[in-house]
Parts: sequence; structure tokens; C-alpha cells
Amino acid sequence: MSKLQSDIHAWLQANRDAGTALLQQLVNMPTLQGNERNAQLFMADKMRNIGLEVDMWELDGEDGEDGKRLKMHPYFYSPRDDFKGSPNVVGVCRGTGGGRSIILNGHVDVVPEGNRELWDDDPFGGVIKDGKLFGRGATDMKGGSVSLLLAVQALQELGVKLQGDVIVQSVVEEESGGAGTLAAILRSYKADAALIPEPTNMKIFPKQQGSMWFRLHIKGRSAHGGTRYEGVSAIELAMPVITHLQTLEQVRNARITDPLYASNPIPIPINIGTITGGNWPSSVPDTVQLEGRMGVAPDESLEQAKQEMADWLARLAEQHVWFRDNPPILEWFGARWVPGSVDADHELLSILAQQYRNVRHEEPVIEASPWGTDGGLLTVLAETPCIVFGPGETKVAHYPNEYMELERMFEAAEIIALTLVQWCGVEGFTNECK
Amino acid sequence: MSKLQSDIHAWLQANRDAGTALLQQLVNMPTLQGNERNAQLFMADKMRNIGLEVDMWELDGEDGEDGKRLKMHPYFYSPRDDFKGSPNVVGVCRGTGGGRSIILNGHVDVVPEGNRELWDDDPFGGVIKDGKLFGRGATDMKGGSVSLLLAVQALQELGVKLQGDVIVQSVVEEESGGAGTLAAILRSYKADAALIPEPTNMKIFPKQQGSMWFRLHIKGRSAHGGTRYEGVSAIELAMPVITHLQTLEQVRNARITDPLYASNPIPIPINIGTITGGNWPSSVPDTVQLEGRMGVAPDESLEQAKQEMADWLARLAEQHVWFRDNPPILEWFGARWVPGSVDADHELLSILAQQYRNVRHEEPVIEASPWGTDGGLLTVLAETPCIVFGPGETKVAHYPNEYMELERMFEAAEIIALTLVQWCGVEGFTNECK
Repeated sequence: MSKLQSDIHAWLQANRDAGTALLQQLVNMPTLQGNERNAQLFMADKMRNIGLEVDMWELDGEDGEDGKRLKMHPYFYSPRDDFKGSPNVVGVCRGTGGGRSIILNGHVDVVPEGNRELWDDDPFGGVIKDGKLFGRGATDMKGGSVSLLLAVQALQELGVKLQGDVIVQSVVEEESGGAGTLAAILRSYKADAALIPEPTNMKIFPKQQGSMWFRLHIKGRSAHGGTRYEGVSAIELAMPVITHLQTLEQVRNARITDPLYASNPIPIPINIGTITGGNWPSSVPDTVQLEGRMGVAPDESLEQAKQEMADWLARLAEQHVWFRDNPPILEWFGARWVPGSVDADHELLSILAQQYRNVRHEEPVIEASPWGTDGGLLTVLAETPCIVFGPGETKVAHYPNEYMELERMFEAAEIIALTLVQWCGVEGFTNECK
Repeated sequence: MSKLQSDIHAWLQANRDAGTALLQQLVNMPTLQGNERNAQLFMADKMRNIGLEVDMWELDGEDGEDGKRLKMHPYFYSPRDDFKGSPNVVGVCRGTGGGRSIILNGHVDVVPEGNRELWDDDPFGGVIKDGKLFGRGATDMKGGSVSLLLAVQALQELGVKLQGDVIVQSVVEEESGGAGTLAAILRSYKADAALIPEPTNMKIFPKQQGSMWFRLHIKGRSAHGGTRYEGVSAIELAMPVITHLQTLEQVRNARITDPLYASNPIPIPINIGTITGGNWPSSVPDTVQLEGRMGVAPDESLEQAKQEMADWLARLAEQHVWFRDNPPILEWFGARWVPGSVDADHELLSILAQQYRNVRHEEPVIEASPWGTDGGLLTVLAETPCIVFGPGETKVAHYPNEYMELERMFEAAEIIALTLVQWCGVEGFTNECK
């Protein structure tokens, strides 16, 4: 293995400029929701060039049945009605047989750049400074996707012939609910394991938290502000509701004993993200609306978490007479991410950790993720155990001046290439796929 | 007086249909903000017909200086930039001399009718059922204005010659901050006392609460909801701020010992009317905005109340370290009403109470009002002590199916007519003004 590692390392060194240019080209394409087609055509070309069989399709495209199956799936969520302009791309490198297959999944869609004034440079410029490439999507997660492509390309060009299939996926819609990966699963893509290089700061996440969005409608009774005692303020009622949710968060987190969450102060948070109530300064507000995100434990189902929240809210009636006749209305809406986890002794985890040590000469940090990815869908629906590990920095994802530390991208590529060799198995150094 | 009272009573009985038709005509005119001209022309005609000298002008009209003086006045507030279509009307009945003058003030503007589906009949139809006339503005306060006009007309037609001037004002802009009454004051209208027949349920309010609108900006720190412990939730911070304001309300109300507030559980409330915070369910909200109304005691100035609120909020820093570096920002905005009060032994009060007994054969309820009127401006700015007493029902003001109980309107007219006689003084039964 040591000879192969040094060959892969040398190949990556020799292809630094090309790898950097590849990321730059991807960042130059503003793959905002609905605008992914050009980048996906580019990805498809790239995959073909490195010898993969390419499958590209629109999620609800020509085939009406596929679209219907997608949109009626219980895990489907998207704010979109149609997916024009947003194809998925999958490239397959067939193994020689007898090995384990793997899905390498990256999403091409990026969140909006937000206020351009907050960026030092063009958010789609791909400017490089001090070894960092700046731009929306650089860290989340085009840098990770480039690591995947470089890993596969390195093995191909070095003539490494894997025994298991490698299925490279460039999906859409991750940022708004996972419809791209769901569509790939419904198109029957599955494997013995999966890896998603979302920005983990080079940490390894064998468990991923799920999450769901909720909305709570709290009802009061209006009155003139000068005689406010004649009304019931929904803003005042919101305070015990928020406190009640905080207690639920404590109860749920007290149950989390998984050592992978040891360094996380609130493993599965309940975040209240928005509040809106009342419509006139001098009226008693008769409605308040709260919106939030409920974290779901890796070993919990979305349905269990929903039920616990509903049961907990029902107990508000014990605390306040008003809630007996006016219970807050709970609504689940918008995006949700399915939790997922692989066993602590899963071989992909030990291989990834070992190759991490080989490349970085230090112990990897293995944790449970504080957020969800498409990995939950792969694990739960496609029965494809998924690990998340990537070169991006979590803290700059979705923020102005997002960047990719290029050195990390090449390190991740090296670790992934070595992991593929060990997971899929190798016959000899030919270049059959190409 | 008994003979005069029975004459006035008989005149009002004889003019029931005409008085009712007058209210109906006024309700038929939808005097929403900016749309008062027709009704004011009608009022001016009516005043002329009963023998008053009429002054009608646009608040910032032909005379540029007047408009400038109005808009630069510290007590000026209006959401409008110009007052086209909204003239004030004042009608004066000159006294014979040696008597006390009085301002009788009513506003012609009404608040919007709101959702028409909630009305049983056309909100501007003036439908009469069971002795009630229904429509927007019937109670607030066209019914009260009709009482004023009937009182003056009865005295005129009965040949009662008052010694003091009677100044009847039909103003605009009461519902949005009092610019109409302020303009009349700046036009030098003042008197020895004033009466405003706002809807008090026939209660007598010698003291009126003031009020002001405030806005509080609370600042947190954003973070991803999955790692919410990295942020500081402005929604969570809003809770101690609200509690702190509730304590201020208690502190301020504990000082109110005035027996006129004896039956009021919270004489000068601090009402939090709106809350808005955060912009994404799965982000930690970094801002919350509260809007509310602060009641101001009759013997307090707006400035004193503002200062107390600012000082109180500064003490939040003692409770929460976060507020030391991130104090909530306090802003005063929008409408405010100046408080006002007349002395407990003011003669207009005792006259009004006496005539109330004479007409209704019961003790009047004398209280401090839970809301402000234009009376504060008259009392404080024009040095014209003002009492609020009117036939409308407080609880239907600003609501669908607002109505005027017609019997109350005529009773109020009788009480007001008798009050004018006693306050202004009488020479003989001629009809000089006409």
C-alpha cells in the first residue's frame, strides 16, 4: 500500500493546478436552485473524460411515472413544482467483480450568496488567496465533490482496477430537502456503502442527526392596549411555550449517551428560529407564530420525534388553563432531513480512519454530526450505510466569504482514493474502466 | 331650570327623526383618512343652518406658514405628508358677553371598516335595528358629534341666549395622532373649558390617560440551529426583556392611588402589541423587535414617562451580562396622545354631573379614561381643561357592527345642552345668534 499511496500522492501533486482549476470552474457557475444545468453538463463531461458511464436525467423529466413516484414519496420535499434546469448526474465505474460497491455523493446546488456587500470578492469569482479558493459553494460542497473526482481520476490514471463499482453522484436539491438524492435512490442506485464529502473540517461523521421544521400557532384574545387586562396576550403565552420546548430539549438530550456526542453540549437541539405575533402596537396580540428546527437523533425516526413533540405540547394544558381550551397548533412544514448512522464497527469507518492516519499522521476526530445530509436517505431508504467526511470548513458554509482550503481538498482526495482501494478491492494496475 | 329642561327635552323628542337622519347621513359618508371633505362640507352647512359662524380650512392649506408651524410642532404626529381632502371645520356661536366659553370637540374621521365579511350590514349603511344605528363611526364618534349639534341647535331654536362663546369643532386626524385638534389650537382656538363626546358609555372622564408607541430592538448572535449553542437567541433574550417591562408596569401602577382609577386593574398599562424576530427556522435568531404602547398617567408628562422607560431598560445590564454589551435599543415612533386632567373640583365637572343626575336620575360614573383623546392637547397646549363624556359604547368602537344606541345620543344632547346653559350662563330667551 505504501507504494500506491506515494503514487496517488505524486499524481495529486502533479495535478494540483488542474484540480484547483476544476474547483474554480465549478465555483464560477452559480448553481443556485433551478440553475444547475450547465454545471451538471460540465460534471457529466468530466466524468466521461475519466472513464465513467454517465446517466443524466431530470428528476421529473420525460418519464412521467418517475416524477410522480418521486413527488408522492413520503420523504419527498421541495419548494419546487418542477425540476426543469436541474438534472442529476451519475457516473459509474464498473468494478471487475467480487468487490464491494460504494456511492460517492456530492450536491452541486448552492445556497444564495446573500448580500453581496458582505463579500470581499465576487461570490462566484473563485478568487484564490493564501491557499484558499473563495466563493459560494467552495466549501459546501464543490470542494468535496472535486476531492471525489480527483480520487477516482487518480486511480484510473494510475491504472488501479477496483473490484467493486464506484458510483459518483452529482445531485441537485440537497439544500432544499434532498429531492436529488431521493430521485437517484428511486432510480435504483444503491451500494454496499456511501461517502458524502460535506464540509466536516476533515472530521469523520458515522452518525448524522436528522432534523425537521415545525410551526406553532399560539392563540390569545385581542383587546385595546389601554384595557389590556380584557385580552389575553399571545406574546405572553409564547413565553411558557418556549420554556416548555426548552425543557423538552433537555429531556431529549439527557437520553443521548452516545460517546460520539461527548463534545457536543446540545446533541439534538430544538431551535426556535422565528417569531411573529400581533399587528398593532396598542392592541393585545391574539396570535403568535413560532418556527423552528427539531434535531432528530441518529437512532430515532422522524415519526417518533414528531409524536414526542405533540405529546409534550399537549401537557401545556396542565400548566395553563388557557391552553386547555386553546392548545397551540403544531404543524410540520418545509424541509426535513432523515437521520442516519452506521455501526461503530462498520468496516468503511475503520478503513477511512486508517487512511486518514496514513495521510495526515494524526488521529481522526470521529463524531456525530450536528446537522443532516442526504446520507440519512441513503442509509435509511437505500440501505446504503453512509459516512460523511469532507475537506470543507463547516463554519463558512452558507456565509459570506465562504472558501475552500485547497490543501485539505487534496488531502481528502488522497484519503478517499486510498479508502476506495481498500473498500472496493483491487486486482492489478491496469486501466480497464477508461 | 326645570321649565328649560322640559323645553329642551320636548324639543329633542320633536326632533328625534331629524337627529337620527343626521347621524345616518354622517355614517353614510365613509370619512376614512383623506376622505373627510364631503362630510366636513356637510358639517359646515349644518353649523351655518343653526346659526354658527363657520371657519373651514385645510390643515396645511393655502397658508404655507400655518402648515409649517403645524408640522414642526413637537406634538405633531401624522402618517400623512399633506392633508388634501381633510379640512377642519369650526363653528362659533358668539356669547352675549360675561359668560364662560367652551369648546365642543368631535372628530369626523373614522378607522377603516376592516373585513366586511364580519359586518352584518353595510358598514356605511346606517341601518337601524332595535333602536341602534349601525355603521363605522356611529359610536366613535359621529353619535357624539350629533349630540353636540343637537344641544346647540335646541338652545338656538328655543331662543336661549348664552353669555359665553360656544365653539363647535369637527376635526380630522384624531384616529392617527391628533393633528386636526392641534391645528385648531395653533389657529388660536381656546376656551375656558372643553367637552369631547368620545364613546365613554355615558361615563364622565375628567382625567385622560396619555400613551406613546415604542419599539425595542433586541440583538442576539446568529448560528446554525444544529449548533445553536454557538449563537445567542434574540427570542430567548426577548423573554427577560418582556418580564422586565411587566415589572416596570407594576412599579408604575403601584404609584397610582387616584380613586378615579379604583375600578381599573391596570390604570396605565404597558402593552406589547407586536413581536418579530429571526428569518429562518433553522438559524439562531439574531434580532427581535417588539412594539408596544406605554400608558402615561394624567399627572405625568410624556417626557417623564420616556425617561423612566429608558432608565428602567438600562437596568437590564444588571440582570444579563449580554445586555451590558448589547443593550436593547429603544425608539419612540408613531402616534402618541398627551395625557390631561381637570381638577376634581372643576366646576364643569360638577355641572356635568348635576345635569347627568337631572336627566338620567342616577349617579354618574366618574372615572379616569383608559385611553387618550384629543383632550390632552386641549388641556396641556391650549390651557383649556377638557372633560370627556359621550353616548357611544367603548366596546364596539373600531369593531365590526359598531353601533350607536340612539336613546343615549338624545340623552347626551340633553345633558350637554343643560351643561352649556349652566356653564356659559344665560340672559334671556331670545335667539340672537341666529
